[in-house]
Amino acid sequence: MRRDAYNRQMQALIERIRAEGSYLGRGIIKVDGFLNHQLDPQLTLGMGVAFKARFDAAGVTGITRIVSAEVSGIAPALATGLAYDVPVVYARKKKPITMADGVYEATAPSRTKGEMVTLRLSPEYLHATDRVLIIDDFLATGQTLVALIEMVQKSGAAVVGIGCVIEKTFEGGRERLAPLGIPLHSLAHITVQNDELSVR
Amino acid sequence: MRRDAYNRQMQALIERIRAEGSYLGRGIIKVDGFLNHQLDPQLTLGMGVAFKARFDAAGVTGITRIVSAEVSGIAPALATGLAYDVPVVYARKKKPITMADGVYEATAPSRTKGEMVTLRLSPEYLHATDRVLIIDDFLATGQTLVALIEMVQKSGAAVVGIGCVIEKTFEGGRERLAPLGIPLHSLAHITVQNDELSVR
Repeated sequence: MRRDAYNRQMQALIERIRAEGSYLGRGIIKVDGFLNHQLDPQLTLGMGVAFKARFDAAGVTGITRIVSAEVSGIAPALATGLAYDVPVVYARKKKPITMADGVYEATAPSRTKGEMVTLRLSPEYLHATDRVLIIDDFLATGQTLVALIEMVQKSGAAVVGIGCVIEKTFEGGRERLAPLGIPLHSLAHITVQNDELSVR
Repeated sequence: MRRDAYNRQMQALIERIRAEGSYLGRGIIKVDGFLNHQLDPQLTLGMGVAFKARFDAAGVTGITRIVSAEVSGIAPALATGLAYDVPVVYARKKKPITMADGVYEATAPSRTKGEMVTLRLSPEYLHATDRVLIIDDFLATGQTLVALIEMVQKSGAAVVGIGCVIEKTFEGGRERLAPLGIPLHSLAHITVQNDELSVR
């Protein structure tokens, strides 16, 4: 059943990327129709179901909190939080005036915005006893994920898994994260050849 | 049933605000534990159920798309999209390089960040035949909502309702929006007296 749920949700996502995704050059993939500007609620919900099925099958259990980053991580992270019924915390890129001092901070370059961004997580919502699953929209260079991992680990919590909706297999993210030994699963894998997307 | 669903979800939200919300002065309300930094997935899902029940009861039907604004509008908008099973589009505050030229733009001041922000919606995901429900986290001065309404109307689509999770009754948003004649519903209403929050 788990494998069925996983395969069905993955296939829906892969077909959507094939139908609507486009390659803009320089490693940039446009999936604004269902991930970065518009959301398909059922497809989004399915991402959460698929992540849980995948990590369950890999024996990664006891998740107590989902951590992500604004903006495009929020929707798949919320769907994953629903699948696990645990809270979701998303790192902020601008410090809201409601955020206290003494928050965890880490920086990472933004590919789609062309600048360094500082991510912030409040210790109010991360505890040393947490087992955290990190969810993000893309795995590209892995630098945003490294920033999230650093902040979570500063709190004493354990990062027990990393889930990405779309993995760009050609930007080294998986290789960058491998030494950390954290289970990493992506729902769809994109390669580019001759300026054409290939999705599996 | 609709009224029951509405009342139950509203009550959960109101109790959560009473338990965790805090007043930081100068009109700023901190609800980071379930709206602006951490999300409670079930509470968030309930916001969508409550908005649909409320607009159904008001005879606002035929919704084809939810429109919101990043960052904190995304989660309640996604929940509302799930309740209606229609796509959700969230306005971007920085133009991603995946966004084409010729997008709708409008500006509004950000209360929690202390600066003007430009909101952007792509005409790819708004059509003249759409009946749009706008969802946001806060109704304060109403200026973000006015910016969203302007952009939606530029596409030729109709804004048939506005739903806000929390209405700050003391910042004039409802009065600003009233002349537009668009049904407006908030799930919780906050007043401040002697630096103490009151929620209903």
